[in-house]
Amino acid sequence: MGTDDLLKQVAFIKEIDKLKYIKRRTKLFKSDRHENDAEHSWHLAMMTLVLAGHSDKPIDVLKVLKMVLIHDLVEIDAGDTFIYDVSKNHTNTDEERLAAKRIFGLLPEAQANDLIAIWEEFEKGVTDDAKFARAMDRFEPLLQNKSNNGGTWTEFNVDYQKVYDKKKAIKEGSTSIWTYAEKLLNESVEEGILRKEVHPEKTYLK
Amino acid sequence: MGTDDLLKQVAFIKEIDKLKYIKRRTKLFKSDRHENDAEHSWHLAMMTLVLAGHSDKPIDVLKVLKMVLIHDLVEIDAGDTFIYDVSKNHTNTDEERLAAKRIFGLLPEAQANDLIAIWEEFEKGVTDDAKFARAMDRFEPLLQNKSNNGGTWTEFNVDYQKVYDKKKAIKEGSTSIWTYAEKLLNESVEEGILRKEVHPEKTYLK
Repeated sequence: MGTDDLLKQVAFIKEIDKLKYIKRRTKLFKSDRHENDAEHSWHLAMMTLVLAGHSDKPIDVLKVLKMVLIHDLVEIDAGDTFIYDVSKNHTNTDEERLAAKRIFGLLPEAQANDLIAIWEEFEKGVTDDAKFARAMDRFEPLLQNKSNNGGTWTEFNVDYQKVYDKKKAIKEGSTSIWTYAEKLLNESVEEGILRKEVHPEKTYLK
Repeated sequence: MGTDDLLKQVAFIKEIDKLKYIKRRTKLFKSDRHENDAEHSWHLAMMTLVLAGHSDKPIDVLKVLKMVLIHDLVEIDAGDTFIYDVSKNHTNTDEERLAAKRIFGLLPEAQANDLIAIWEEFEKGVTDDAKFARAMDRFEPLLQNKSNNGGTWTEFNVDYQKVYDKKKAIKEGSTSIWTYAEKLLNESVEEGILRKEVHPEKTYLK
């Protein structure tokens, strides 16, 4: 790689610093402090490292790490979308595609194309690697909300079925993690930090 | 992997959340906000992904990613040591070894031993993988300080030679990144954000 490549890579390295300012709805464990996207991405990478052995299918750990490290970079331009916000499209919006093109486009072309392809693979969630990466992305906030007396579930009045429907993506990646996750959801209902009843007339965000 | 393993891994995943509270001396790019260790670890992982092609020797990118993702976990117990603090030992203190044993020790035994070995390899800095990982760890704060009118160099009155001596570890991993890093250091002297003169009587931390 030459100097031209390095200058482009340094421009990218500086630009992605902005991920540290993007706040998520979820909070740190047993905490009132919101997590930011960079911290979240690091945590998913750590979870991938220690939980990879629970994947039902063989996975390419390096590929999954790339996915979780970069999966939220588009939010630098497109912002964080809350998973229980019913008013928003959650899959690969035009805005996110433009963001991917601009941000990864700072890199040398081959590298940009490679990372955009990995991001698209994560978003589609079809391959075994993407399924495991997405399982990590669903599992972390479950653990956080459980530790925070329901966290965003209580804060935004989300019911069990809505949570269940989002969390079952974990099952696509790992049966053993899903068994544990389901147990945590049931415990949360018993503890009164996740409500079982459905009130369809309620929206999840004002 | 069984349920017992998963419970241990979840305990570890919760424990390492504490890395997000450990503040570094350096600040985010063009910012007054201190970086925390989790954000820093994520940034080094991203740098590894995009800069691996600049390594002088073949490296195992997955291994290097593991190194940079876990390299600061011991600071959960041992705290951050400022690189220009001459009063402190910077290599693998007893306190850090105890921290590694406790924190990685939350994991299933084989996994704990594996990660402790990777952390020790990073700390020793002898292998090509460790040299590249350490180059990333030196390069990020250089870019940050350059963007922050000298950052910790001016804040703690550190001179060029001291900085140079720390930064030359970059050369061990990548000649091309080092060439660029040296240029940035020289520019910093010219811009007056890194002082050339040595005042040996001065300490770097009060």
